Amino acid sequence: MNFKGQHILSTAQFDKEGLLEIFEEAKKMEKVLQDGGSDVLSGKILATLFFEPSTRTRFSFESAMNRLGGRVLSNADMAATSSLKKNESLEDTVKTVSKMVDVIAIRHPESYSVEKTSNFSNVPVINAGDGSNQHPTQALLDVYTIWKEKGSIDGLTVGMIGDLKNGRVPHSQCDLLKHFDVKFVFVAPDALKMPDEIVKELKSVGKEVVEGENLSELIEEMDVIGMTRVQKERFESEEEYLKYEGIYVLDAKIMDKAKKDAIIVHPLPRVDEVSVELDSDPRAKYFDQVGNGVVVRMALLKKVLGY
Amino acid sequence: MNFKGQHILSTAQFDKEGLLEIFEEAKKMEKVLQDGGSDVLSGKILATLFFEPSTRTRFSFESAMNRLGGRVLSNADMAATSSLKKNESLEDTVKTVSKMVDVIAIRHPESYSVEKTSNFSNVPVINAGDGSNQHPTQALLDVYTIWKEKGSIDGLTVGMIGDLKNGRVPHSQCDLLKHFDVKFVFVAPDALKMPDEIVKELKSVGKEVVEGENLSELIEEMDVIGMTRVQKERFESEEEYLKYEGIYVLDAKIMDKAKKDAIIVHPLPRVDEVSVELDSDPRAKYFDQVGNGVVVRMALLKKVLGY
Amino acid sequence: MNFKGQHILSTAQFDKEGLLEIFEEAKKMEKVLQDGGSDVLSGKILATLFFEPSTRTRFSFESAMNRLGGRVLSNADMAATSSLKKNESLEDTVKTVSKMVDVIAIRHPESYSVEKTSNFSNVPVINAGDGSNQHPTQALLDVYTIWKEKGSIDGLTVGMIGDLKNGRVPHSQCDLLKHFDVKFVFVAPDALKMPDEIVKELKSVGKEVVEGENLSELIEEMDVIGMTRVQKERFESEEEYLKYEGIYVLDAKIMDKAKKDAIIVHPLPRVDEVSVELDSDPRAKYFDQVGNGVVVRMALLKKVLGY
Repeated sequence: MNFKGQHILSTAQFDKEGLLEIFEEAKKMEKVLQDGGSDVLSGKILATLFFEPSTRTRFSFESAMNRLGGRVLSNADMAATSSLKKNESLEDTVKTVSKMVDVIAIRHPESYSVEKTSNFSNVPVINAGDGSNQHPTQALLDVYTIWKEKGSIDGLTVGMIGDLKNGRVPHSQCDLLKHFDVKFVFVAPDALKMPDEIVKELKSVGKEVVEGENLSELIEEMDVIGMTRVQKERFESEEEYLKYEGIYVLDAKIMDKAKKDAIIVHPLPRVDEVSVELDSDPRAKYFDQVGNGVVVRMALLKKVLGY
Repeated sequence: MNFKGQHILSTAQFDKEGLLEIFEEAKKMEKVLQDGGSDVLSGKILATLFFEPSTRTRFSFESAMNRLGGRVLSNADMAATSSLKKNESLEDTVKTVSKMVDVIAIRHPESYSVEKTSNFSNVPVINAGDGSNQHPTQALLDVYTIWKEKGSIDGLTVGMIGDLKNGRVPHSQCDLLKHFDVKFVFVAPDALKMPDEIVKELKSVGKEVVEGENLSELIEEMDVIGMTRVQKERFESEEEYLKYEGIYVLDAKIMDKAKKDAIIVHPLPRVDEVSVELDSDPRAKYFDQVGNGVVVRMALLKKVLGY
Repeated sequence: MNFKGQHILSTAQFDKEGLLEIFEEAKKMEKVLQDGGSDVLSGKILATLFFEPSTRTRFSFESAMNRLGGRVLSNADMAATSSLKKNESLEDTVKTVSKMVDVIAIRHPESYSVEKTSNFSNVPVINAGDGSNQHPTQALLDVYTIWKEKGSIDGLTVGMIGDLKNGRVPHSQCDLLKHFDVKFVFVAPDALKMPDEIVKELKSVGKEVVEGENLSELIEEMDVIGMTRVQKERFESEEEYLKYEGIYVLDAKIMDKAKKDAIIVHPLPRVDEVSVELDSDPRAKYFDQVGNGVVVRMALLKKVLGY
């Protein structure tokens, strides 16, 4: 795939070849980090425009840019501090910033907002999360983690557990994993199960999909245990949220039933759906994912800037 | 003019020679950008202290500093996060910061505040906007845009349209353009017209000044069409503001009457006083001004730091 | 002392040898600054996580890192913008950030919070102030200022004036100065006097301690006049605070009684406990302390990163 000058807006942009290209580049970046970084993006500037604060994602992009010798202009809280208060359109804001930098990472609470505004930028725009819609670099780092830890993706059974209805993370993961020979196991209460259209799409491209509610049974065959946070902010009421809060908790007891070489992935932040007692379990990869996020974003920044 | 070690506080500091010196340097900076930036300010640090958030202006200074290899310490919202909350004086704050960096850009909502505090800094202070008083780098980039687009400034007819009473932008532009052989055309309703003392001063130095309310007639002779936003935040009441909101709107129809080689300048953000349908009109230069702002600030940073 | 890879959490970590090692390194850093900075930390990244805003301290760390060629990821207001809002634990936040950077400076309003979370970081954590508990780099720069200005610390009479009960600054200074042959003079009203356990500890290691309320008498023998702000935010009520606000004010009149070669130190920000008329008194060193803070932090960053 040709990434140079491209916006990165959605997981739908990636085919298998493109994914493996990013993953191979990310692996090279791990070596670059061990060697103390690089100067390949020296002279280039990334702007991070976060209309919804996220220190983790912002720092990951900014770390990636700095590790490659690039510079960063940062706005951690655009909603509080930008000209949008003077009624400037998001399009004008993005167009303006694009005249001062070489690449822009945008996080915005509204679905599709990043895609719409990217048309007004003359530099590549990377979607750093747009509401419940997409967060493609998170999905890339999730799948990169699987690829790196398990050696390859084909042949694996991948479990996704929790709020599969509202979570953009499992949706995006499906969108990438469908390019591989993967069996899906979805574990969710009926009200929070994976949307039908996603299940149908996976089956239409020949994937095996198992759905159920019983985690302690279904965990046994998983090579990848994908936990997600039940996202309070996506529920309509506190009451509705409390019904499902803590419905699945991964702890040492349940992990006894899991494969010895399974891996646990989680996008973080976690609340209590993954017990801290698992942090020292060698199968827990969620904090390693943070480092994987940096190298995946290094790879992407390099590619979209044409290096 | 000797800029080394100087504070940049007001458009009144610039004479014609000084302006042309900055413009020639800014033009060189366009070449530097094309060549991938410079390291001339390597080891130098700019602090941006914004007591009133402005992503556009802050990013412009920070982009300029980074493009020259310098570094930036950034406070996007001093009012919310500084020791002023502990009753520290602005003078002490600026003096403190001046001990840690090489140059400071300050934006503050109070008129003359930047000038007053600059006495306490032992490094150059650049006024990045102090209330309704001054925003000299904005005026410099406006006039640089005219100089660059039209080849020279002498002989031009420059129009200014909108809230000419409260807008610091048109006031500052007059203060710079008076050094050139320019005819001024001011278009405003009576209640928002250019202050008498500015008109008198322009006439006293031999400038021709035309004033009127009818944009569609007066636009015909303009080489430069200077639109300004009616600034809600400068009005005493919402009611008073609404009287004049949208009083002049530049759109394709009215631009039919303008010269084919006129240029439209606007400081941004715009609300609706310039129709988006004009964004693709080759005469529209307001988004190019953003890039011009970066090179003008590169030129200034270089000069005040003695390079 | 071996600083490489160490967290810097408390003044209690430092012995006399360690202090002098930092001071000698800081002095070298003054030379580095005069020579235009260094690239020794090129490729390294500092994260500043400020759960309580402090522009002075944050800028000091960030200036230090940049002066050595390192890069910075900055969060000036973690409380307002972090995943803690999504109920992420402070431990998870710090562990996450530690996967993306090489060293972390944390400021937090809760005592001992930085120490507790440092266990979850796999990179050095520097305490940039944790409530009323510790602010070790401030104490280091205070004592460095004395060492630098007076040539040595042994043999000096050091005065501390103001709120000696609640102020972490005088407590931390005692913790460092006790390693030297120093006589202490504490000036405070009875309700705000130095805690007994600190006085006892100083005496137990053979220090002479004088306590009193009368500044104009006690100031005469001080080589170092350590003023502190009566910290409003540490009092239980406005009423309680007002009792002691302005109880000691250092001005030209009282400084007539002080030694000609005494020095005035103050951690800043000041409110009115040091009169601005003293700013031009050559004995006033409080603004020089800001610059000393940068070189001390340069020294520390270098040391903990193993350079």
